Amino acid sequence: MSKLVRFGISMEKGLLESFDKLITKMGYPNRSEAIRHLIRELLVKEEWKHPNQETIGTITIVYSHEVRELPQRLTELQHQYYKQIISTMHIHLDKHNCLEVLAVKGKAWEIKKIADRLLSTKGIKHGTLSTTTTGKKLK
Amino acid sequence: MSKLVRFGISMEKGLLESFDKLITKMGYPNRSEAIRHLIRELLVKEEWKHPNQETIGTITIVYSHEVRELPQRLTELQHQYYKQIISTMHIHLDKHNCLEVLAVKGKAWEIKKIADRLLSTKGIKHGTLSTTTTGKKLK
Amino acid sequence: MSKLVRFGISMEKGLLESFDKLITKMGYPNRSEAIRHLIRELLVKEEWKHPNQETIGTITIVYSHEVRELPQRLTELQHQYYKQIISTMHIHLDKHNCLEVLAVKGKAWEIKKIADRLLSTKGIKHGTLSTTTTGKKLK
Amino acid sequence: MSKLVRFGISMEKGLLESFDKLITKMGYPNRSEAIRHLIRELLVKEEWKHPNQETIGTITIVYSHEVRELPQRLTELQHQYYKQIISTMHIHLDKHNCLEVLAVKGKAWEIKKIADRLLSTKGIKHGTLSTTTTGKKLK
Repeated sequence: MSKLVRFGISMEKGLLESFDKLITKMGYPNRSEAIRHLIRELLVKEEWKHPNQETIGTITIVYSHEVRELPQRLTELQHQYYKQIISTMHIHLDKHNCLEVLAVKGKAWEIKKIADRLLSTKGIKHGTLSTTTTGKKLK
Repeated sequence: MSKLVRFGISMEKGLLESFDKLITKMGYPNRSEAIRHLIRELLVKEEWKHPNQETIGTITIVYSHEVRELPQRLTELQHQYYKQIISTMHIHLDKHNCLEVLAVKGKAWEIKKIADRLLSTKGIKHGTLSTTTTGKKLK
Repeated sequence: MSKLVRFGISMEKGLLESFDKLITKMGYPNRSEAIRHLIRELLVKEEWKHPNQETIGTITIVYSHEVRELPQRLTELQHQYYKQIISTMHIHLDKHNCLEVLAVKGKAWEIKKIADRLLSTKGIKHGTLSTTTTGKKLK
Repeated sequence: MSKLVRFGISMEKGLLESFDKLITKMGYPNRSEAIRHLIRELLVKEEWKHPNQETIGTITIVYSHEVRELPQRLTELQHQYYKQIISTMHIHLDKHNCLEVLAVKGKAWEIKKIADRLLSTKGIKHGTLSTTTTGKKLK
């Protein structure tokens, strides 16, 4: 962890009161923590604008394992990207439905491409890409 | 404008440096302004979670005026909601395409409904709802 | 308008029933219209991934006209981008607050830059960029 | 899987050509698959508008394990919601940073609350909530 610095900011009284009320409801321990959170979100959004930036994404897919050949297709596809896919968590949601969550590390464009490929696979019910960060730049 | 208050926050040195760099690039005059901006965004997002909250939205639609009866349908539809639609700006994009931007004031659920109705009209090429605020609570 | 073509698609019965129910609620006249809408949204999202694509955006800002020099700063800023800003609609929301909606035409990166500049102006309460299209490619 | 039904839709020739080009690039095997995908996305978005809807979310957090007491706090917090958190995947990103991905099942409002609580924990660098589905309604 890098050194902490302290600085002052000014704000309209009414705005600060609304902010305090909302972050208490959300569970933040104090203003600094909530503001750091907002700043980091802004920085991560900026990171993802650069296609060659090394970053982290979470791909979530929901599908029925009963769709013919789908599990095999997904496995094959994932093996093509074994260098980027760090790990996969699989959950049996019910008799038919599976939840699969993949942690992916790579360049922003690579992660988006892997998500496109997985989400467009025949039989997938729903999928999302969550764009996060390696945390390295958020010291 | 309400009274300004001043308070201190602490942050990792590296995080602050990345933040300073980004907000300079975006054009913010100083940290306070950028942080107030982030806080107001959070508050407006919260506002829109409450269906009965009085708020403001901007509906943008792009369409071809040559689609049969579309201009009339849009006009009729807008008149049904004349109490909420404050004003409409119309731009002739080219020989075929029109851009129409509506400023809408009302409860969050009403604005969403008007957007749904307009965007689902036969012949509309594209539409968006921008969720903003009356500014009253952001003192 | 370009020629209409017709083609068949297949879908699970249950999925189609849920879809029919939802689009009726949203106000779509029929399935074709709703599906065309979804497809155009996908295409416009793709458009905005290309920084040099000529496109249209709507910038919405809410601010108090009482903030010192803000109206002048906004006017000056807008004049720097007079080639891209087609038109501006101004609404007096109450004694203090203004709503200003700008229709902007230009390359995707230019529109984003203008939005960044406007939204970061000292005194702006809230701002959004709505990313739409010239409609030219959506025939 | 429920019975497949087939129906026809009509579309402008130019729009269909742009669609075909984009979905080929994204990796879809055919139009039906891509359209089903768009429809399911619309339905899942609708699901999340209902706070009491039983659904699935993926929460992703990035943090440094060196922040004092953070690992314990996260573990305690997760145990409070052990009924909703199905499983957690933990990845050591580097010497300092951890990626933790939680699969969560519950009512939409519960999942959002758990995400708020986790993301607001002191020391978290970044977090996201991915809103997906149990797949039950997407037959």
